[in-house]
Amino acid sequence: MSFKTIEMNDQVTLIPNNSLITNTPEEGRQLAVKMARLIIKITQPDPEVREQLRPKYAHDASNLIAIGQTVAIEFATIAKANNYWK
Amino acid sequence: MSFKTIEMNDQVTLIPNNSLITNTPEEGRQLAVKMARLIIKITQPDPEVREQLRPKYAHDASNLIAIGQTVAIEFATIAKANNYWK
Amino acid sequence: MSFKTIEMNDQVTLIPNNSLITNTPEEGRQLAVKMARLIIKITQPDPEVREQLRPKYAHDASNLIAIGQTVAIEFATIAKANNYWK
Amino acid sequence: MSFKTIEMNDQVTLIPNNSLITNTPEEGRQLAVKMARLIIKITQPDPEVREQLRPKYAHDASNLIAIGQTVAIEFATIAKANNYWK
Amino acid sequence: MSFKTIEMNDQVTLIPNNSLITNTPEEGRQLAVKMARLIIKITQPDPEVREQLRPKYAHDASNLIAIGQTVAIEFATIAKANNYWK
Amino acid sequence: MSFKTIEMNDQVTLIPNNSLITNTPEEGRQLAVKMARLIIKITQPDPEVREQLRPKYAHDASNLIAIGQTVAIEFATIAKANNYWK
Repeated sequence: MSFKTIEMNDQVTLIPNNSLITNTPEEGRQLAVKMARLIIKITQPDPEVREQLRPKYAHDASNLIAIGQTVAIEFATIAKANNYWK
Repeated sequence: MSFKTIEMNDQVTLIPNNSLITNTPEEGRQLAVKMARLIIKITQPDPEVREQLRPKYAHDASNLIAIGQTVAIEFATIAKANNYWK
Repeated sequence: MSFKTIEMNDQVTLIPNNSLITNTPEEGRQLAVKMARLIIKITQPDPEVREQLRPKYAHDASNLIAIGQTVAIEFATIAKANNYWK
Repeated sequence: MSFKTIEMNDQVTLIPNNSLITNTPEEGRQLAVKMARLIIKITQPDPEVREQLRPKYAHDASNLIAIGQTVAIEFATIAKANNYWK
Repeated sequence: MSFKTIEMNDQVTLIPNNSLITNTPEEGRQLAVKMARLIIKITQPDPEVREQLRPKYAHDASNLIAIGQTVAIEFATIAKANNYWK
Repeated sequence: MSFKTIEMNDQVTLIPNNSLITNTPEEGRQLAVKMARLIIKITQPDPEVREQLRPKYAHDASNLIAIGQTVAIEFATIAKANNYWK
Protein backbone atom coordinates (compact mmCIF):
# COMPACT_ATOMS: atom_id res chain seq x y z
CA MET A 1 0.00 0.00 0.00
CA SER A 2 1.34 3.39 -0.94
CA PHE A 3 1.29 5.13 2.43
CA LYS A 4 2.00 8.56 1.04
CA THR A 5 -1.04 8.30 -1.14
CA ILE A 6 -3.42 7.32 1.59
CA GLU A 7 -2.85 10.42 3.63
CA MET A 8 -5.92 12.58 3.66
CA ASN A 9 -5.60 14.00 0.20
CA ASP A 10 -8.18 16.59 -0.70
CA GLN A 11 -7.62 15.82 -4.34
CA VAL A 12 -8.62 12.16 -4.16
CA THR A 13 -12.34 11.57 -4.39
CA LEU A 14 -13.32 8.16 -3.11
CA ILE A 15 -17.09 8.59 -3.35
CA PRO A 16 -18.42 10.49 -6.37
CA ASN A 17 -21.10 12.96 -5.25
CA ASN A 18 -20.06 12.32 -1.65
CA SER A 19 -23.24 10.34 -1.12
CA LEU A 20 -24.34 6.72 -1.01
CA ILE A 21 -27.87 7.62 -2.08
CA THR A 22 -28.83 6.85 -5.67
CA ASN A 23 -32.13 6.94 -7.55
CA THR A 24 -32.17 3.30 -8.64
CA PRO A 25 -30.60 -0.06 -7.82
CA GLU A 26 -28.76 0.05 -11.16
CA GLU A 27 -27.12 3.36 -10.20
CA GLY A 28 -26.32 1.93 -6.79
CA ARG A 29 -24.65 -1.03 -8.46
CA GLN A 30 -22.59 1.28 -10.68
CA LEU A 31 -21.60 3.27 -7.60
CA ALA A 32 -20.39 0.05 -5.94
CA VAL A 33 -18.21 -0.70 -8.96
CA LYS A 34 -16.87 2.89 -8.99
CA MET A 35 -16.05 2.88 -5.28
CA ALA A 36 -14.19 -0.43 -5.62
CA ARG A 37 -12.19 0.94 -8.57
CA LEU A 38 -11.27 4.11 -6.71
CA ILE A 39 -9.60 2.11 -3.94
CA ILE A 40 -7.46 0.41 -6.59
CA LYS A 41 -6.75 3.85 -8.03
CA ILE A 42 -5.53 5.38 -4.78
CA THR A 43 -3.49 2.31 -3.91
CA GLN A 44 -1.87 2.33 -7.36
CA PRO A 45 -2.06 5.94 -8.56
CA ASP A 46 0.14 5.36 -11.63
CA PRO A 47 -2.17 4.89 -14.66
CA GLU A 48 0.57 3.12 -16.63
CA VAL A 49 0.99 0.50 -13.94
CA ARG A 50 -2.81 0.04 -13.75
CA GLU A 51 -2.82 -0.38 -17.54
CA GLN A 52 -0.14 -3.09 -17.27
CA LEU A 53 -2.14 -4.83 -14.56
CA ARG A 54 -5.41 -4.78 -16.49
CA PRO A 55 -4.91 -8.21 -18.11
CA LYS A 56 -4.23 -9.59 -14.64
CA TYR A 57 -7.75 -8.50 -13.70
CA ALA A 58 -9.55 -9.18 -16.89
CA HIS A 59 -7.89 -12.43 -17.97
CA ASP A 60 -7.62 -14.20 -14.64
CA ALA A 61 -10.60 -16.20 -13.45
CA SER A 62 -9.68 -15.97 -9.74
CA ASN A 63 -9.25 -12.22 -9.91
CA LEU A 64 -12.52 -11.77 -11.81
CA ILE A 65 -14.32 -13.63 -9.05
CA ALA A 66 -12.51 -11.66 -6.35
CA ILE A 67 -13.55 -8.37 -7.98
CA GLY A 68 -17.12 -9.65 -7.81
CA GLN A 69 -16.73 -10.25 -4.08
CA THR A 70 -15.51 -6.68 -3.54
CA VAL A 71 -18.40 -5.22 -5.52
CA ALA A 72 -20.84 -7.45 -3.64
CA ILE A 73 -19.62 -6.14 -0.28
CA GLU A 74 -19.73 -2.50 -1.45
CA PHE A 75 -23.18 -2.99 -2.92
CA ALA A 76 -24.48 -4.48 0.33
CA THR A 77 -23.62 -1.18 2.06
CA ILE A 78 -25.10 0.98 -0.68
CA ALA A 79 -28.27 -1.08 -0.84
CA LYS A 80 -28.77 -0.72 2.93
CA ALA A 81 -28.14 3.02 2.68
CA ASN A 82 -30.94 3.27 0.12
CA ASN A 83 -33.25 0.96 2.05
CA TYR A 84 -33.14 -1.31 -0.97
CA TRP A 85 -34.87 1.32 -3.09
CA LYS A 86 -38.22 0.13 -1.75
CA MET B 1 -10.12 -3.96 -14.39
CA SER B 2 -11.11 -2.43 -17.68
CA PHE B 3 -11.52 1.22 -16.68
CA LYS B 4 -13.12 2.29 -19.91
CA THR B 5 -15.85 -0.26 -19.38
CA ILE B 6 -16.68 0.81 -15.88
CA GLU B 7 -17.59 4.32 -16.84
CA MET B 8 -21.29 4.89 -16.46
CA ASN B 9 -22.35 3.09 -19.58
CA ASP B 10 -26.03 3.29 -20.36
CA GLN B 11 -25.73 0.10 -22.36
CA VAL B 12 -24.51 -2.09 -19.52
CA THR B 13 -27.26 -3.44 -17.34
CA LEU B 14 -25.98 -4.65 -13.99
CA ILE B 15 -29.34 -5.43 -12.39
CA PRO B 16 -32.01 -6.98 -14.64
CA ASN B 17 -35.34 -5.27 -14.01
CA ASN B 18 -33.52 -2.59 -12.03
CA SER B 19 -34.93 -4.04 -8.84
CA LEU B 20 -33.81 -6.31 -6.01
CA ILE B 21 -37.39 -7.40 -5.31
CA THR B 22 -38.39 -10.88 -6.48
CA ASN B 23 -41.45 -13.03 -5.92
CA THR B 24 -39.69 -16.02 -4.37
CA PRO B 25 -36.42 -16.98 -2.70
CA GLU B 26 -35.56 -19.11 -5.75
CA GLU B 27 -35.87 -16.07 -8.02
CA GLY B 28 -33.82 -14.05 -5.55
CA ARG B 29 -31.13 -16.72 -5.66
CA GLN B 30 -31.11 -16.65 -9.47
CA LEU B 31 -30.84 -12.86 -9.35
CA ALA B 32 -27.80 -13.17 -7.06
CA VAL B 33 -26.14 -15.49 -9.58
CA LYS B 34 -27.03 -13.12 -12.45
CA MET B 35 -25.71 -10.05 -10.67
CA ALA B 36 -22.42 -11.81 -9.89
CA ARG B 37 -22.05 -12.88 -13.52
CA LEU B 38 -22.72 -9.37 -14.80
CA ILE B 39 -19.77 -8.01 -12.83
CA ILE B 40 -17.55 -10.57 -14.55
CA LYS B 41 -19.12 -9.53 -17.84
CA ILE B 42 -18.39 -5.83 -17.45
CA THR B 43 -14.88 -6.48 -16.17
CA GLN B 44 -14.17 -8.79 -19.12
CA PRO B 45 -16.51 -7.66 -21.89
CA ASP B 46 -14.95 -9.90 -24.56
CA PRO B 47 -17.11 -13.05 -24.86
CA GLU B 48 -14.25 -15.03 -26.45
CA VAL B 49 -12.00 -14.38 -23.48
CA ARG B 50 -14.82 -15.34 -21.09
CA GLU B 51 -15.26 -18.54 -23.09
CA GLN B 52 -11.54 -19.33 -22.75
CA LEU B 53 -11.75 -18.68 -19.01
CA ARG B 54 -14.78 -20.89 -18.47
CA PRO B 55 -12.78 -24.03 -17.65
CA LYS B 56 -10.85 -21.98 -15.09
CA TYR B 57 -14.16 -21.40 -13.32
CA ALA B 58 -15.83 -24.69 -13.87
CA HIS B 59 -12.87 -27.06 -13.46
CA ASP B 60 -11.09 -25.43 -10.55
CA ALA B 61 -12.22 -26.32 -7.05
CA SER B 62 -10.93 -23.10 -5.45
CA ASN B 63 -12.68 -20.94 -8.03
CA LEU B 64 -15.93 -22.89 -7.70
CA ILE B 65 -15.88 -22.23 -3.96
CA ALA B 66 -15.02 -18.56 -4.49
CA ILE B 67 -17.97 -18.15 -6.88
CA GLY B 68 -20.13 -19.56 -4.11
CA GLN B 69 -18.85 -16.90 -1.74
CA THR B 70 -19.71 -14.14 -4.19
CA VAL B 71 -23.22 -15.48 -4.72
CA ALA B 72 -23.65 -15.86 -0.95
CA ILE B 73 -22.78 -12.19 -0.39
CA GLU B 74 -25.07 -11.00 -3.20
CA PHE B 75 -27.89 -13.20 -1.96
CA ALA B 76 -27.56 -11.82 1.57
CA THR B 77 -28.36 -8.37 0.18
CA ILE B 78 -31.24 -9.57 -1.98
CA ALA B 79 -32.73 -11.62 0.85
CA LYS B 80 -32.67 -8.57 3.14
CA ALA B 81 -34.25 -6.43 0.43
CA ASN B 82 -37.12 -8.91 0.24
CA ASN B 83 -37.41 -9.27 4.01
CA TYR B 84 -36.59 -12.94 3.50
CA TRP B 85 -39.85 -13.42 1.57
CA LYS B 86 -41.67 -13.82 4.88
CA MET C 1 -18.72 -19.88 -15.13
CA SER C 2 -20.90 -21.76 -17.58
CA PHE C 3 -23.05 -18.93 -18.90
CA LYS C 4 -25.52 -21.18 -20.65
CA THR C 5 -26.28 -22.86 -17.35
CA ILE C 6 -26.92 -19.71 -15.44
CA GLU C 7 -29.74 -18.58 -17.64
CA MET C 8 -33.04 -18.74 -15.80
CA ASN C 9 -33.51 -22.46 -16.03
CA ASP C 10 -36.76 -23.73 -14.63
CA GLN C 11 -35.14 -27.11 -14.11
CA VAL C 12 -32.42 -25.91 -11.75
CA THR C 13 -33.51 -25.63 -8.16
CA LEU C 14 -31.20 -23.45 -6.11
CA ILE C 15 -33.24 -23.40 -2.91
CA PRO C 16 -34.96 -26.65 -1.90
CA ASN C 17 -38.52 -25.91 -0.77
CA ASN C 18 -38.16 -22.40 -2.16
CA SER C 19 -37.95 -21.07 1.37
CA LEU C 20 -35.29 -19.94 3.83
CA ILE C 21 -37.50 -20.83 6.81
CA THR C 22 -36.61 -23.99 8.72
CA ASN C 23 -37.83 -25.50 11.97
CA THR C 24 -34.48 -25.64 13.75
CA PRO C 25 -30.97 -24.17 13.58
CA GLU C 26 -29.65 -27.60 12.59
CA GLU C 27 -31.97 -27.67 9.56
CA GLY C 28 -30.96 -24.10 8.76
CA ARG C 29 -27.34 -25.15 8.85
CA GLN C 30 -28.03 -28.07 6.51
CA LEU C 31 -29.87 -25.70 4.18
CA ALA C 32 -26.82 -23.43 4.12
CA VAL C 33 -24.63 -26.38 3.12
CA LYS C 34 -27.15 -27.43 0.45
CA MET C 35 -27.44 -23.95 -1.03
CA ALA C 36 -23.66 -23.64 -1.24
CA ARG C 37 -23.41 -27.02 -2.99
CA LEU C 38 -26.12 -26.11 -5.49
CA ILE C 39 -24.10 -23.12 -6.70
CA ILE C 40 -21.19 -25.46 -7.37
CA LYS C 41 -23.61 -27.76 -9.13
CA ILE C 42 -24.98 -25.14 -11.50
CA THR C 43 -21.53 -23.75 -12.21
CA GLN C 44 -20.21 -27.23 -12.98
CA PRO C 45 -23.23 -29.26 -14.07
CA ASP C 46 -21.19 -32.30 -15.16
CA PRO C 47 -21.27 -34.85 -12.31
CA GLU C 48 -18.12 -36.61 -13.59
CA VAL C 49 -16.13 -33.40 -13.41
CA ARG C 50 -17.50 -32.71 -9.90
CA GLU C 51 -16.45 -36.26 -8.94
CA GLN C 52 -12.91 -35.60 -10.25
CA LEU C 53 -12.78 -32.36 -8.30
CA ARG C 54 -13.96 -33.92 -5.04
CA PRO C 55 -10.43 -34.65 -3.73
CA LYS C 56 -9.54 -31.03 -4.43
CA TYR C 57 -12.24 -30.04 -1.96
CA ALA C 58 -11.89 -32.77 0.57
CA HIS C 59 -8.10 -33.17 0.65
CA ASP C 60 -7.03 -29.54 0.48
CA ALA C 61 -6.84 -27.58 3.72
CA SER C 62 -7.29 -24.17 2.06
CA ASN C 63 -10.35 -25.33 0.15
CA LEU C 64 -11.87 -26.93 3.25
CA ILE C 65 -11.54 -23.62 5.07
CA ALA C 66 -12.95 -21.71 2.09
CA ILE C 67 -16.00 -23.99 1.98
CA GLY C 68 -16.50 -23.13 5.64
CA GLN C 69 -16.50 -19.44 4.78
CA THR C 70 -19.15 -19.94 2.11
CA VAL C 71 -21.38 -21.92 4.47
CA ALA C 72 -20.87 -19.30 7.19
CA ILE C 73 -22.07 -16.52 4.87
CA GLU C 74 -25.08 -18.53 3.67
CA PHE C 75 -25.96 -19.48 7.24
CA ALA C 76 -25.83 -15.85 8.36
CA THR C 77 -28.62 -15.08 5.88
CA ILE C 78 -30.70 -18.12 6.83
CA ALA C 79 -30.29 -17.43 10.56
CA LYS C 80 -31.51 -13.85 10.06
CA ALA C 81 -34.45 -15.08 8.00
CA ASN C 82 -35.46 -17.32 10.89
CA ASN C 83 -34.84 -14.65 13.53
CA TYR C 84 -32.24 -17.01 14.99
CA TRP C 85 -34.98 -19.51 15.86
CA LYS C 86 -35.68 -17.57 19.05
CA MET D 1 -17.11 -31.64 -1.48
CA SER D 2 -18.31 -35.13 -0.70
CA PHE D 3 -21.83 -34.95 -2.06
CA LYS D 4 -22.95 -38.18 -0.45
CA THR D 5 -22.09 -36.74 2.93
CA ILE D 6 -24.02 -33.58 2.52
CA GLU D 7 -27.34 -35.28 2.06
CA MET D 8 -29.60 -34.70 5.05
CA ASN D 9 -27.95 -37.14 7.37
CA ASP D 10 -29.65 -37.54 10.71
CA GLN D 11 -26.36 -38.71 12.16
CA VAL D 12 -24.39 -35.56 11.40
CA THR D 13 -24.81 -32.82 13.96
CA LEU D 14 -23.78 -29.43 12.64
CA ILE D 15 -24.90 -27.35 15.62
CA PRO D 16 -24.34 -28.86 19.08
CA ASN D 17 -27.46 -28.34 21.20
CA ASN D 18 -29.35 -27.29 18.07
CA SER D 19 -29.27 -23.70 19.29
CA LEU D 20 -27.29 -20.52 18.68
CA ILE D 21 -28.08 -19.23 22.17
CA THR D 22 -25.29 -19.39 24.74
CA ASN D 23 -24.87 -18.00 28.24
CA THR D 24 -21.76 -15.95 27.62
CA PRO D 25 -19.73 -14.41 24.77
CA GLU D 26 -16.95 -16.91 25.52
CA GLU D 27 -19.32 -19.84 24.97
CA GLY D 28 -20.59 -18.16 21.84
CA ARG D 29 -17.05 -17.89 20.57
CA GLN D 30 -16.43 -21.57 21.29
CA LEU D 31 -19.63 -22.42 19.46
CA ALA D 32 -18.40 -20.46 16.43
CA VAL D 33 -15.17 -22.47 16.43
CA LYS D 34 -17.13 -25.74 16.80
CA MET D 35 -19.54 -24.91 14.00
CA ALA D 36 -16.66 -24.06 11.67
CA ARG D 37 -14.89 -27.34 12.50
CA LEU D 38 -18.04 -29.37 11.90
CA ILE D 39 -18.26 -28.12 8.31
CA ILE D 40 -14.71 -29.34 7.76
CA LYS D 41 -15.71 -32.62 9.39
CA ILE D 42 -18.69 -33.24 7.13
CA THR D 43 -16.78 -32.20 4.03
CA GLN D 44 -13.91 -34.53 4.94
CA PRO D 45 -15.45 -37.26 7.12
CA ASP D 46 -12.31 -39.42 7.20
CA PRO D 47 -10.47 -38.71 10.48
CA GLU D 48 -7.18 -40.03 9.08
CA VAL D 49 -7.28 -37.56 6.22
CA ARG D 50 -8.13 -34.74 8.64
CA GLU D 51 -5.17 -35.82 10.77
CA GLN D 52 -2.87 -35.67 7.71
CA LEU D 53 -4.20 -32.22 6.87
CA ARG D 54 -3.73 -30.86 10.38
CA PRO D 55 -0.22 -29.46 9.74
CA LYS D 56 -1.60 -27.69 6.70
CA TYR D 57 -3.94 -25.80 9.00
CA ALA D 58 -1.71 -25.34 11.97
CA HIS D 59 1.63 -24.66 10.26
CA ASP D 60 0.47 -22.44 7.41
CA ALA D 61 0.12 -18.73 8.09
CA SER D 62 -2.39 -18.13 5.29
CA ASN D 63 -4.60 -20.98 6.45
CA LEU D 64 -4.42 -19.85 10.08
CA ILE D 65 -5.66 -16.42 9.01
CA ALA D 66 -8.37 -17.94 6.82
CA ILE D 67 -9.63 -20.04 9.75
CA GLY D 68 -9.88 -16.79 11.70
CA GLN D 69 -12.03 -15.30 8.97
CA THR D 70 -14.40 -18.28 9.07
CA VAL D 71 -14.72 -18.10 12.85
CA ALA D 72 -15.27 -14.32 12.64
CA ILE D 73 -18.18 -14.77 10.22
CA GLU D 74 -19.75 -17.55 12.31
CA PHE D 75 -19.31 -15.51 15.49
CA ALA D 76 -21.01 -12.50 13.90
CA THR D 77 -24.15 -14.62 13.45
CA ILE D 78 -24.00 -16.11 16.95
CA ALA D 79 -23.39 -12.72 18.55
CA LYS D 80 -26.44 -11.27 16.76
CA ALA D 81 -28.53 -14.26 17.82
CA ASN D 82 -27.62 -13.54 21.43
CA ASN D 83 -28.11 -9.79 21.10
CA TYR D 84 -24.44 -9.43 21.98
CA TRP D 85 -25.16 -10.84 25.45
CA LYS D 86 -26.19 -7.38 26.58
CA MET E 1 -6.99 -27.46 12.69
CA SER E 2 -5.87 -29.17 15.88
CA PHE E 3 -9.07 -30.93 16.85
CA LYS E 4 -7.90 -31.84 20.35
CA THR E 5 -7.35 -28.17 21.06
CA ILE E 6 -10.72 -27.02 20.02
CA GLU E 7 -12.60 -29.15 22.48
CA MET E 8 -14.26 -26.99 25.12
CA ASN E 9 -11.20 -26.19 27.13
CA ASP E 10 -11.80 -24.22 30.28
CA GLN E 11 -8.24 -23.02 30.12
CA VAL E 12 -8.47 -21.32 26.75
CA THR E 13 -9.88 -17.82 26.89
CA LEU E 14 -11.12 -16.63 23.52
CA ILE E 15 -12.65 -13.34 24.66
CA PRO E 16 -10.77 -11.38 27.36
CA ASN E 17 -13.24 -10.13 29.98
CA ASN E 18 -15.89 -12.37 28.45
CA SER E 19 -17.58 -9.31 27.00
CA LEU E 20 -17.82 -7.50 23.67
CA ILE E 21 -18.56 -4.19 25.41
CA THR E 22 -15.73 -1.65 25.55
CA ASN E 23 -15.55 1.98 26.61
CA THR E 24 -14.23 3.39 23.34
CA PRO E 25 -13.91 2.50 19.64
CA GLU E 26 -10.15 2.26 20.11
CA GLU E 27 -10.57 -0.39 22.80
CA GLY E 28 -13.10 -2.15 20.60
CA ARG E 29 -10.56 -2.19 17.79
CA GLN E 30 -7.91 -3.64 20.08
CA LEU E 31 -10.38 -6.28 21.20
CA ALA E 32 -10.97 -7.23 17.56
CA VAL E 33 -7.24 -7.68 17.05
CA LYS E 34 -6.97 -9.73 20.26
CA MET E 35 -9.89 -11.98 19.38
CA ALA E 36 -8.42 -12.65 15.94
CA ARG E 37 -5.03 -13.52 17.47
CA LEU E 38 -6.60 -15.88 19.99
CA ILE E 39 -8.09 -18.00 17.21
CA ILE E 40 -4.62 -18.35 15.72
CA LYS E 41 -3.35 -19.21 19.19
CA ILE E 42 -5.84 -22.02 19.80
CA THR E 43 -5.40 -23.40 16.30
CA GLN E 44 -1.62 -23.40 16.71
CA PRO E 45 -1.00 -23.64 20.45
CA ASP E 46 2.77 -24.14 20.15
CA PRO E 47 4.46 -20.74 20.72
CA GLU E 48 7.63 -21.88 18.93
CA VAL E 49 5.70 -22.69 15.78
CA ARG E 50 3.88 -19.36 15.99
CA GLU E 51 7.26 -17.66 16.34
CA GLN E 52 8.53 -19.44 13.21
CA LEU E 53 5.39 -18.39 11.33
CA ARG E 54 5.64 -14.74 12.36
CA PRO E 55 7.63 -13.64 9.30
CA LYS E 56 5.01 -15.30 7.14
CA TYR E 57 2.47 -12.93 8.62
CA ALA E 58 4.55 -9.84 8.95
CA HIS E 59 6.60 -10.03 5.73
CA ASP E 60 3.94 -11.21 3.32
CA ALA E 61 1.74 -8.61 1.67
CA SER E 62 -1.13 -11.00 0.99
CA ASN E 63 -1.18 -12.26 4.57
CA LEU E 64 -1.01 -8.72 5.96
CA ILE E 65 -4.09 -7.82 3.93
CA ALA E 66 -5.86 -11.03 4.97
CA ILE E 67 -5.22 -10.25 8.65
CA GLY E 68 -6.87 -6.89 8.00
CA GLN E 69 -9.92 -8.63 6.62
CA THR E 70 -10.21 -10.81 9.72
CA VAL E 71 -9.90 -7.83 12.04
CA ALA E 72 -12.46 -5.92 9.95
CA ILE E 73 -15.01 -8.71 10.33
CA GLU E 74 -14.40 -9.06 14.08
CA PHE E 75 -14.61 -5.29 14.53
CA ALA E 76 -17.93 -5.14 12.67
CA THR E 77 -19.40 -7.43 15.33
CA ILE E 78 -17.86 -5.54 18.25
CA ALA E 79 -18.95 -2.17 16.85
CA LYS E 80 -22.53 -3.41 16.53
CA ALA E 81 -22.42 -4.79 20.07
CA ASN E 82 -21.44 -1.35 21.31
CA ASN E 83 -23.96 0.46 19.13
CA TYR E 84 -21.00 2.17 17.49
CA TRP E 85 -20.20 3.91 20.79
CA LYS E 86 -22.75 6.58 19.96
CA MET F 1 1.54 -11.69 13.52
CA SER F 2 3.91 -9.96 15.90
CA PHE F 3 2.39 -10.94 19.21
CA LYS F 4 4.43 -8.51 21.23
CA THR F 5 3.05 -5.69 19.16
CA ILE F 6 -0.55 -6.55 19.62
CA GLU F 7 -0.50 -6.25 23.35
CA MET F 8 -2.50 -3.29 24.50
CA ASN F 9 -0.06 -0.59 23.57
CA ASP F 10 -1.08 2.88 24.60
CA GLN F 11 1.15 4.24 21.89
CA VAL F 12 -0.59 2.54 18.99
CA THR F 13 -3.64 4.38 17.73
CA LEU F 14 -5.88 2.16 15.65
CA ILE F 15 -8.74 4.65 15.19
CA PRO F 16 -7.80 8.30 14.64
CA ASN F 17 -10.05 10.54 16.75
CA ASN F 18 -11.25 7.44 18.59
CA SER F 19 -14.58 7.71 16.79
CA LEU F 20 -16.35 6.12 13.83
CA ILE F 21 -18.46 9.23 13.29
CA THR F 22 -17.51 11.46 10.35
CA ASN F 23 -19.18 14.44 8.71
CA THR F 24 -19.46 13.00 5.21
CA PRO F 25 -19.35 9.69 3.36
CA GLU F 26 -16.05 10.75 1.78
CA GLU F 27 -14.48 11.21 5.21
CA GLY F 28 -15.94 7.89 6.28
CA ARG F 29 -14.37 6.24 3.27
CA GLN F 30 -10.99 7.79 4.11
CA LEU F 31 -11.36 6.57 7.68
CA ALA F 32 -11.98 3.04 6.37
CA VAL F 33 -8.76 3.21 4.35
CA LYS F 34 -6.85 4.58 7.37
CA MET F 35 -8.16 1.92 9.74
CA ALA F 36 -7.20 -0.84 7.29
CA ARG F 37 -3.68 0.63 6.93
CA LEU F 38 -3.22 0.85 10.69
CA ILE F 39 -3.76 -2.89 11.08
CA ILE F 40 -0.99 -3.47 8.55
CA LYS F 41 1.13 -0.98 10.49
CA ILE F 42 0.74 -2.71 13.84
CA THR F 43 1.26 -6.14 12.33
CA GLN F 44 4.41 -4.96 10.57
CA PRO F 45 5.70 -2.04 12.62
CA ASP F 46 9.02 -1.75 10.73
CA PRO F 47 8.64 1.06 8.14
CA GLU F 48 11.53 -0.29 6.06
CA VAL F 49 9.84 -3.67 5.70
CA ARG F 50 6.54 -1.96 4.79
CA GLU F 51 8.46 0.05 2.19
CA GLN F 52 9.91 -3.15 0.71
CA LEU F 53 6.43 -4.69 0.62
CA ARG F 54 4.83 -1.72 -1.09
CA PRO F 55 5.31 -3.03 -4.65
CA LYS F 56 3.70 -6.26 -3.52
CA TYR F 57 0.57 -4.27 -2.71
CA ALA F 58 0.63 -1.76 -5.48
CA HIS F 59 1.84 -3.92 -8.37
CA ASP F 60 -0.11 -7.10 -7.70
CA ALA F 61 -3.62 -7.34 -9.08
CA SER F 62 -4.79 -9.93 -6.52
CA ASN F 63 -3.49 -7.87 -3.61
CA LEU F 64 -5.07 -4.68 -4.98
CA ILE F 65 -8.42 -6.43 -5.11
CA ALA F 66 -7.93 -7.89 -1.61
CA ILE F 67 -7.18 -4.41 -0.22
CA GLY F 68 -10.48 -3.33 -1.74
CA GLN F 69 -12.27 -6.10 0.10
CA THR F 70 -10.76 -5.02 3.42
CA VAL F 71 -11.74 -1.39 2.86
CA ALA F 72 -15.24 -2.48 1.82
CA ILE F 73 -15.72 -4.40 5.07
CA GLU F 74 -14.39 -1.53 7.19
CA PHE F 75 -16.55 0.97 5.32
CA ALA F 76 -19.66 -1.13 5.87
CA THR F 77 -19.14 -0.72 9.64
CA ILE F 78 -18.41 3.00 9.42
CA ALA F 79 -21.39 3.64 7.15
CA LYS F 80 -23.71 1.86 9.60
CA ALA F 81 -22.23 3.84 12.50
CA ASN F 82 -23.10 7.04 10.65
CA ASN F 83 -26.53 5.83 9.61
CA TYR F 84 -25.35 6.23 6.02
CA TRP F 85 -25.06 9.99 6.52
CA LYS F 86 -28.75 10.32 5.81
